[in-house]
Amino acid sequence: MTEPLKPDAIDAVIHERVRLAIVAALAVSPELTFNELKETLDLTDGNLSAHSRTLEEAGYIVVQKSFQGRRPLTTMRLTLKGRNAFARYLATLRRIMDHADRGTADSS
Amino acid sequence: MTEPLKPDAIDAVIHERVRLAIVAALAVSPELTFNELKETLDLTDGNLSAHSRTLEEAGYIVVQKSFQGRRPLTTMRLTLKGRNAFARYLATLRRIMDHADRGTADSS
Repeated sequence: MTEPLKPDAIDAVIHERVRLAIVAALAVSPELTFNELKETLDLTDGNLSAHSRTLEEAGYIVVQKSFQGRRPLTTMRLTLKGRNAFARYLATLRRIMDHADRGTADSS
Repeated sequence: MTEPLKPDAIDAVIHERVRLAIVAALAVSPELTFNELKETLDLTDGNLSAHSRTLEEAGYIVVQKSFQGRRPLTTMRLTLKGRNAFARYLATLRRIMDHADRGTADSS
């Protein structure tokens, strides 16, 4: 059992399922609107609001509120800090997968 | 933004950080004792007890209590169901990483 994964090695801000989905979506788009994220990820308003606030407070995303005509428009994008945190998070996932692969040979 | 990750695609039982660490450790060992897991993963008794119960209730691990001399000995191992769930979970992680890799080219 070399290099066991310790829970604390995983970034809890990114790891939560809804936030992970948000960050993963923003990582491949320059920015997304609140409604785009909500529809693409099947989220409720409240769920997306709460989790985007946590990401914003961590400095991982920027939330910008503006108007499109008279309709409020909320857009989100990943910050450099968020992008770096996600890269570190992906490296941790890779460690988990490498570790698991090593165990495949003797699994039954 | 092809194939976005939806939160529900991630197995919540395995995804939680402590449980993920437990399952990842058990995936590469035939079985581990309570104390081995506790020490390897830096967990408290309460933390390990609570999360192993959740894994047991999901049918992902088997917890066996016996005695070594007069001392109680608790061992845990992954069930076939747990092993399959972890394999599916790893496939989801792979999707997340593949999706993120596709975004790397145009990230700044």
